[in-house]
Amino acid sequence: MIPDLPILPNLTDPRLTRRVAGTDQTGAGIEISVVEERPLTIYLNSQEIVTAMTIGDYPEYLALGFLRNQGMLKADDVVTAIDFDEEIETVVVRTGRQTSYEEKVKKKTRTSGCAVGTVFGDMMEGLEGLTLPAVEVRTSWLYALAHQINTTPSLYLEAGAIHGTVLCERDRPLVYMEDVGRHNAVDKIAGFLFQHRVPASDKILYTTGRLTSEMVIKTALMGIPVLASRSGFTAWGVEIARQVGLTLIGRMRGQRFVCLSGEDRLVRDADPASVPDEGRKHRRKGAGDD
Amino acid sequence: MIPDLPILPNLTDPRLTRRVAGTDQTGAGIEISVVEERPLTIYLNSQEIVTAMTIGDYPEYLALGFLRNQGMLKADDVVTAIDFDEEIETVVVRTGRQTSYEEKVKKKTRTSGCAVGTVFGDMMEGLEGLTLPAVEVRTSWLYALAHQINTTPSLYLEAGAIHGTVLCERDRPLVYMEDVGRHNAVDKIAGFLFQHRVPASDKILYTTGRLTSEMVIKTALMGIPVLASRSGFTAWGVEIARQVGLTLIGRMRGQRFVCLSGEDRLVRDADPASVPDEGRKHRRKGAGDD
Repeated sequence: MIPDLPILPNLTDPRLTRRVAGTDQTGAGIEISVVEERPLTIYLNSQEIVTAMTIGDYPEYLALGFLRNQGMLKADDVVTAIDFDEEIETVVVRTGRQTSYEEKVKKKTRTSGCAVGTVFGDMMEGLEGLTLPAVEVRTSWLYALAHQINTTPSLYLEAGAIHGTVLCERDRPLVYMEDVGRHNAVDKIAGFLFQHRVPASDKILYTTGRLTSEMVIKTALMGIPVLASRSGFTAWGVEIARQVGLTLIGRMRGQRFVCLSGEDRLVRDADPASVPDEGRKHRRKGAGDD
Repeated sequence: MIPDLPILPNLTDPRLTRRVAGTDQTGAGIEISVVEERPLTIYLNSQEIVTAMTIGDYPEYLALGFLRNQGMLKADDVVTAIDFDEEIETVVVRTGRQTSYEEKVKKKTRTSGCAVGTVFGDMMEGLEGLTLPAVEVRTSWLYALAHQINTTPSLYLEAGAIHGTVLCERDRPLVYMEDVGRHNAVDKIAGFLFQHRVPASDKILYTTGRLTSEMVIKTALMGIPVLASRSGFTAWGVEIARQVGLTLIGRMRGQRFVCLSGEDRLVRDADPASVPDEGRKHRRKGAGDD
């Protein structure tokens, strides 16, 4: 069954951040919160697939989403068990279907966005014949989402140096995932969608990260027709978004944004002039947007 | 021989950015510059090692640096040839020594920072017995570097969505590399150091990216004793920096910074109060710090 929504960053989990002592520019001793970064090795049945560096929450969603986005889990695969062992930092996804991806695991693409094991050929194949639904996307929703997401208490606001990816419906954030690895955050969303068989066609994906080819491919593979970000674009990301007809919106800051693909879905029902600028406190800084 | 320094971002190279048409928040048509993102497959002799998504400049440095940072090129390896073929997007590094990393290439760690193929075990081994020199680092240099780097015309300032890593000596930027993949930028620096046998012990590395475990490991492996960034930290990055005695400075913005490791190298010769805040124009935004 689907957990209660929204799922928001868990600031009370002591495993996600650590207080570290240091000095500031004046030489004065200070203590700051920094995010954790730990390995998680993902197995599909008996095969070791990858070791991800992750903040460590939602290992089951991360494993499912990674495998799904790599095409190693099919849409109709039956997951018989997910065994997470915190001590040895492994998660094993077990399926009814026998799987073997020896060859695939050997091939690697090092993307702009950290997806070891991503094979673009295979991912692009997954896009063939894909049609994203012609839903409407109101700019009032986008503005409301950006404001809520930027002001929601998060590990980013507490410790910085972390990415957020948020599954949204209309103007409501449903699942807000954060991770030191940008693609881990989006994979956790994919894992959530897969595990709970949540429809994606009426969703909007918001990310703090850049709109690279891989972010666009993963969003399309999930069947989400709209990807929005406060960050910028890469040329190939735009190209793929246009190929698959995905609405791609970037550089969302205060009232400003740029749409480089899928303009036809946009319903401009909000007057940009009525949108307040981002408050200094909630303006994301490089410290966390890396 | 070493090329003339400094090496700065090349804004005149038409292969690195593209003009793309879209709409802004008002619905008005606009055209913006976006960075390119293209695959580059790296071979070591006859073996395919990895395909990196890169902006595409300095493929030779990227290949050398990646292989060096992976421990696949030894410090004393003789590179007999580097063959880059732009059409098929491959670069082949040829060595006098026979190489075989079949096993190694099978193992993968997906880091927070995009290093496919990185095997932490091996990388950590490379750190064993490593001693970083007890050089002094003046805060006046750090402030001067941050100001110069932030105001140097760059692909970031033109198109955003790209990372910078800069090899510096005292208060002078020597080699300013940018890439859509943060770790490509640092690998290009490693490739430069390796190819030209440039000493690293008196250098400072500045990055726009986060100070993750992998950034710290790569900096230490290069033999550079100081790593500074405007971005934040991860707990493991700090831990490793302390283990190897690397000076780690983050959150450098205007007069502010935080030092979480290697404080002993810092010579606080600058009065922070005398350092101007970052100009709005040059304040890096999430759009490029992702």
